[in-house]
Amino acid sequence: MVKLVFARHGLSEWNQKNLFTGWADVDLAEQGVEEAIKAGLLVKEAGIEFDIAYTSVLKRAIKTTNYVLEYSDQLWVPVEKSWRLNERHYGGLTGLNKADAAAKHGDEQVHIWRRSYDVLPPDMARDDEYSAHNDRRYALLDDTVVPDAENLKVTLERALPFWEDKIAPALKEGKNVFVGAHGNSIRALVKHIEGLSDDEIMGVEIPNFPPLVYDFDEKLNVVKKYYLEEK
Amino acid sequence: MVKLVFARHGLSEWNQKNLFTGWADVDLAEQGVEEAIKAGLLVKEAGIEFDIAYTSVLKRAIKTTNYVLEYSDQLWVPVEKSWRLNERHYGGLTGLNKADAAAKHGDEQVHIWRRSYDVLPPDMARDDEYSAHNDRRYALLDDTVVPDAENLKVTLERALPFWEDKIAPALKEGKNVFVGAHGNSIRALVKHIEGLSDDEIMGVEIPNFPPLVYDFDEKLNVVKKYYLEEK
Repeated sequence: MVKLVFARHGLSEWNQKNLFTGWADVDLAEQGVEEAIKAGLLVKEAGIEFDIAYTSVLKRAIKTTNYVLEYSDQLWVPVEKSWRLNERHYGGLTGLNKADAAAKHGDEQVHIWRRSYDVLPPDMARDDEYSAHNDRRYALLDDTVVPDAENLKVTLERALPFWEDKIAPALKEGKNVFVGAHGNSIRALVKHIEGLSDDEIMGVEIPNFPPLVYDFDEKLNVVKKYYLEEK
Repeated sequence: MVKLVFARHGLSEWNQKNLFTGWADVDLAEQGVEEAIKAGLLVKEAGIEFDIAYTSVLKRAIKTTNYVLEYSDQLWVPVEKSWRLNERHYGGLTGLNKADAAAKHGDEQVHIWRRSYDVLPPDMARDDEYSAHNDRRYALLDDTVVPDAENLKVTLERALPFWEDKIAPALKEGKNVFVGAHGNSIRALVKHIEGLSDDEIMGVEIPNFPPLVYDFDEKLNVVKKYYLEEK
């Protein structure tokens, strides 16, 4: 039996201000740091030993991963960072307060962008300070895969190859895997793991804390799904 | 021109107590955290952009690496951890106060163990709490490469393949490389880079701070060697 542990990053500075974040590389808030440390202590208490860890290229997920590994006494575990685990790209909504976005585009439209599976928000301008097209970390990617906006469907499509190429093979090799990522990239993987419909996944919320665990058998059937709990 | 930046980890809890550390996985002291953060800020001030970072599997070097990347705004840079960049294994001296070691083995003997290139300290017992043979992070290595004690010569022999396989090829591809490591693993690489004799390297001290930089031409000739300086 192998374990896959998901930790959504702890509360970020923009979560605190209720801003659309997406690919903007925002730091953890103090509360987020505490959540990540507590997540590490829960992993330690549960005695879970990782063989490999994966995270995004955004600092709020990387720092969460580093805290979890440090506080579970396994900071030496290899960590691989990939843009495929990034948060959903919120396009032109990035950096907007949710109330301001509603004032600008209408409540209903913003609700649709947030809650629909396959409707795209407006594109981010290529000269926007947050555009991934001007960011060194994405410079080696084919320009056509660097998004200007994403819905959950597109997020799943670009996250899935990471499951297929990295996470699933590691689990099949008997490795315990940690994934430190984001609300929507974790949702994308949960949809795939549980075979949920497009509608069903929209009702799934991933909390910033505590970590979510799947136990798998050797065929990658889910044996158990649970959250780590404080004793 | 490419850059290789070495940061020896900041002051550790055992450095503070003047204990032989080696492969014992000791945390940074508060001063060490501050040194690592300052190192990151110096990298940022110098405008150095890394493409890849390498570190050991010991937390004092990993945390130093993470702080340097975070405070130079490039935490997304890939990090690879390898036992080949570990500190020299101090064998049976590990955990001893330097004065206690002298009381036990004699001043002159301890001086020889610390300052000679190729004299081995006594082996660590296989049932020692710090023995690498009982440590999960080395479990996949061939048992014959897991040391019980090392001198600088042996440290260089096991660090050199990492230069050959990873660091040198990355530099030749035009990548700027960061190495967050230890006094003796950095010395080993410096000896190789500068073609120093066994005697010459014994006179080289690597400070915990500031970082050491080599600029190389495309044939990996050293164009310039310098320490980052506060302006």
